[in-house]
Amino acid sequence: MLSTPLPTMDLPRLQQQLTFVLEIDRLKTVLRQTLLTDGSRRENSAEHSWHLAMMAIALAEYAPPGTDLVRAIKQLLIHDLVEIDAGDTFCYDAAGNTDKAAREMQAADRLFGLLPPEQGQELRSLWDEFEARRTPTAQFAAALDRIQPLLHNQQTAGGTWKQHGITRAQVLQRMQPVATGAPQLWPMVLRVIEESVKAGYLCP
Amino acid sequence: MLSTPLPTMDLPRLQQQLTFVLEIDRLKTVLRQTLLTDGSRRENSAEHSWHLAMMAIALAEYAPPGTDLVRAIKQLLIHDLVEIDAGDTFCYDAAGNTDKAAREMQAADRLFGLLPPEQGQELRSLWDEFEARRTPTAQFAAALDRIQPLLHNQQTAGGTWKQHGITRAQVLQRMQPVATGAPQLWPMVLRVIEESVKAGYLCP
Repeated sequence: MLSTPLPTMDLPRLQQQLTFVLEIDRLKTVLRQTLLTDGSRRENSAEHSWHLAMMAIALAEYAPPGTDLVRAIKQLLIHDLVEIDAGDTFCYDAAGNTDKAAREMQAADRLFGLLPPEQGQELRSLWDEFEARRTPTAQFAAALDRIQPLLHNQQTAGGTWKQHGITRAQVLQRMQPVATGAPQLWPMVLRVIEESVKAGYLCP
Repeated sequence: MLSTPLPTMDLPRLQQQLTFVLEIDRLKTVLRQTLLTDGSRRENSAEHSWHLAMMAIALAEYAPPGTDLVRAIKQLLIHDLVEIDAGDTFCYDAAGNTDKAAREMQAADRLFGLLPPEQGQELRSLWDEFEARRTPTAQFAAALDRIQPLLHNQQTAGGTWKQHGITRAQVLQRMQPVATGAPQLWPMVLRVIEESVKAGYLCP
């Protein structure tokens, strides 16, 4: 919505930062498959990111040793920004997931490139760490990103699972990052899956 | 959407935390007056909170000395939770603002009370600090909470200002916390206001 697309590098520092702040507003218009817990509508990626940051605070004690909680919160706040350009790819959409990485990489170049260089690089390295899933911090953040839609699907009597005929085996595989990133929460995940199968929310 | 409203204190610790995590999903359904920058719809308080946390990261260097940035981010993530019970009160609504504090205090008791006690108290003290606006941290957080709708109103050709016939003097007064909480951003605020008056977005 900025009236003139000036080359970012020519703008004074604060103007670059404000351009970024205004540009990321678009994440509020990227819709995910997941429904709100009241089933009223699909969730957008900005409010989803807020919810995950709140989960990192509320569930901090289940983070694996070596987790940097502040980095995890920042990663969760920025992890979906690339969807502004690349869109949200449904996790069970095999075709859409083939070129997802390339589309998101380009988006990261553009979006973090709106900021002053050293600041853009700092956020980019947080995003790269999240994507690589190699540190306890990124693994904890990824675990929360899996748990939230699981809980929402249970709360909405199957939500997206029902719509797409998702099976117990698919969800079990999708949830694997929780086993590494938040092992103490794994029994809860298994319980929610079994309860959901029993309730008919999820195909056995 | 939780099926049985059990007394929180009887639930195991993780169940209390998950109850809180699911309950706060309702913040996504609380609408603010502010429009998204593309003018497509009103903003909700969850995505607004995400946006402010992102602003704290992008504009961190303008925080006054003594600011604890991590506390500011946490305050911004939780500052509107009370609206789940108390609703969003339009800042220029004199009547709605008379009992706002009492309504929000009750809401804070209930919502933070869903968590295990020491955790609820920790979040409550963050919220109390934000509300009191006495520390540099809370003053910086409050400044961002004023700047964001200012930018949105400019981007949407007057947005809420036009709808309610808001004047330059009202906005100037509303923006005062920026002068204390992020003095380096004050000239930018003044510039946006003057540009908005000149463009006819704001009554002189």
